[in-house]
Amino acid sequence: MPADRGRTSGPPTISEVAAEAGVGRATAARTLGGYGYVSPELKERVLAAAEKLGYRANALARSMSTGVSHTLGVIVADIGNPFFAGVVRGICDTSRARGFDTIVLSTYENLDEEVAATNVLIDKRVDGVIIASAAVGRGEVAHIRTALDRGIPVVLVDRAIGALDLDAVVINNRDAAREAVEVLIAAGHRRIGFVWGPPVTKVPRTRRELLAAASRNLWTDGERLRGYLDALDDAHIPFDPELVMVGPKTEERATEEVVRMLRLPRRITALFCTETDAVTGALRAVRQEKLSYPRDLSLIGFDDSAWAAVMDPPLTMIEQPVHQLGAKAAEVLLDPLEGAEPRREMHTLRTRLVLRSSVAPPQPS
Amino acid sequence: MPADRGRTSGPPTISEVAAEAGVGRATAARTLGGYGYVSPELKERVLAAAEKLGYRANALARSMSTGVSHTLGVIVADIGNPFFAGVVRGICDTSRARGFDTIVLSTYENLDEEVAATNVLIDKRVDGVIIASAAVGRGEVAHIRTALDRGIPVVLVDRAIGALDLDAVVINNRDAAREAVEVLIAAGHRRIGFVWGPPVTKVPRTRRELLAAASRNLWTDGERLRGYLDALDDAHIPFDPELVMVGPKTEERATEEVVRMLRLPRRITALFCTETDAVTGALRAVRQEKLSYPRDLSLIGFDDSAWAAVMDPPLTMIEQPVHQLGAKAAEVLLDPLEGAEPRREMHTLRTRLVLRSSVAPPQPS
Repeated sequence: MPADRGRTSGPPTISEVAAEAGVGRATAARTLGGYGYVSPELKERVLAAAEKLGYRANALARSMSTGVSHTLGVIVADIGNPFFAGVVRGICDTSRARGFDTIVLSTYENLDEEVAATNVLIDKRVDGVIIASAAVGRGEVAHIRTALDRGIPVVLVDRAIGALDLDAVVINNRDAAREAVEVLIAAGHRRIGFVWGPPVTKVPRTRRELLAAASRNLWTDGERLRGYLDALDDAHIPFDPELVMVGPKTEERATEEVVRMLRLPRRITALFCTETDAVTGALRAVRQEKLSYPRDLSLIGFDDSAWAAVMDPPLTMIEQPVHQLGAKAAEVLLDPLEGAEPRREMHTLRTRLVLRSSVAPPQPS
Repeated sequence: MPADRGRTSGPPTISEVAAEAGVGRATAARTLGGYGYVSPELKERVLAAAEKLGYRANALARSMSTGVSHTLGVIVADIGNPFFAGVVRGICDTSRARGFDTIVLSTYENLDEEVAATNVLIDKRVDGVIIASAAVGRGEVAHIRTALDRGIPVVLVDRAIGALDLDAVVINNRDAAREAVEVLIAAGHRRIGFVWGPPVTKVPRTRRELLAAASRNLWTDGERLRGYLDALDDAHIPFDPELVMVGPKTEERATEEVVRMLRLPRRITALFCTETDAVTGALRAVRQEKLSYPRDLSLIGFDDSAWAAVMDPPLTMIEQPVHQLGAKAAEVLLDPLEGAEPRREMHTLRTRLVLRSSVAPPQPS
């Protein structure tokens, strides 16, 4: 049979069938996997190519016997956050190109919802799970272990969990925060606020208490706080607990706390924000106090967006590689499903500080 | 047995079991439906209450025999759009409170993806589907009919489709656009740009050609265009095709087109934007031309956000009831599943024009 023209060895792959049929890999995968929509004309071409290459007799049979459903499950903390929406887009684009559909569940930062979502994905027989988990410690990961026990591979995205030896795709949170705060220090600032810290009700008095609180909360937030402290340490600026917001992470609370920091006897002249809502909350505070940025307050925050660029003055922001985070997580999940050796490592992607016009030297007071 | 204390008639409901057990309705539904996570202690209380009220013998058995999976499927055009993220939140909140999980698929405005997503949801045996469809005509709805043929109810959200006699939950697009343009006209404007119109490559020369193009494209976009034209008609302002952007709906194209309109011999003095990316694109154009708003260009757009409120000056924007849109769609889908008579109607929710500071009288030229 003519199946081995130009091929070296091994059974034909989906990509080879796709090339032979002159269709995309996803179309070939859908047809051969027997799921999803493919037009009758394309389906016929793919099946003809598969028969010609001898694909049908092995790979399709294998796919059917392993019961791969060609669906990935994604659990994110909040699909309403443009960051997670971008990550999901990256996952969808990559998984689609490799013939997998993606279903998404959002837990709105509620661990009970995350447990329920994991059970839904197990129940729906997904081939793997990518999760940005709200779990923070050993005691909160039983649902993830359950998925693993059922043979469903899990990849963490955005948030690492120390208690689990799993692949994780994250950004360099600590370095990104340190770099931003260094820019503020280089401009001459020494009173630099941090919004937001851990969501504890009792205000930590010492650096030690603060770090202890951070390590009981979200990994990303803790890393960003450590980067802020790193930059202060390097510049020999003493830590001042009054300059770190703690408590509920809402735009309203950010406004209140930034107003408070702007009214301190030795007020802040710069601010580092770890999330978009913290940035908009801070901008409200600046307006409320009838101040302007960057004259009265220099400002750098996560995450860059079209809005940050059209602000007047435009904001210096940290851009996360959101699409890449998702794409990489999908790759790390799919490669072993398609035969690659699984590895369990931390994949760290780099952010980019987009310098615009929200940083200036402090005003003489 | 003590099952009918205080009850009037009929078998006990999930809500009654929940009340008896002292737990939330969702917890009771999860326990009795045998899906999702419930802590052992709560599960025991629910089962005890169910037995006490005589629930177990009827409703649970019915649920098991009908094979209800207690999962809703949601298909949205783009989960990266904060509007859809808000709608999904509304769907999740309502369905969760009623004991249903929600899985989401995003099609990124690609009809082939939408067809595939529908097949995934059928395959995953969801109990119903809520869809913001990219389909525009009779020829593009076969996948939705397939779901209906399989006995899966479908509710449209955000986008109505004339060819389908289904429940649809939408906003008053036409009136919202008319009201916004009326505000611009009342401020004295007569040269009012519209971004964006239908994504056609050939620029329509007449109002008739424009409306024909609109009716072959997204329903929401067409309705907003009609509202713009309504307001012009009421004020006897002649339609000028040069003031309507057509072509690809991207921020970059919006910037180019607004720059073009600002450079016309009789330039625009006001602008109505139908989406967030059109607003940020327009703001880039204003800056690029070294102009400022509202002095040189008055501006109203869809959709309101935290960013729009912290712009300087803050933007007058149309706020959509995003959470309510999702909540209502979930209700309309779930009510018949729980025994209500299904109706097939258009549920129209109202937007709110949030007046801020981006509208001023035109400058004398």
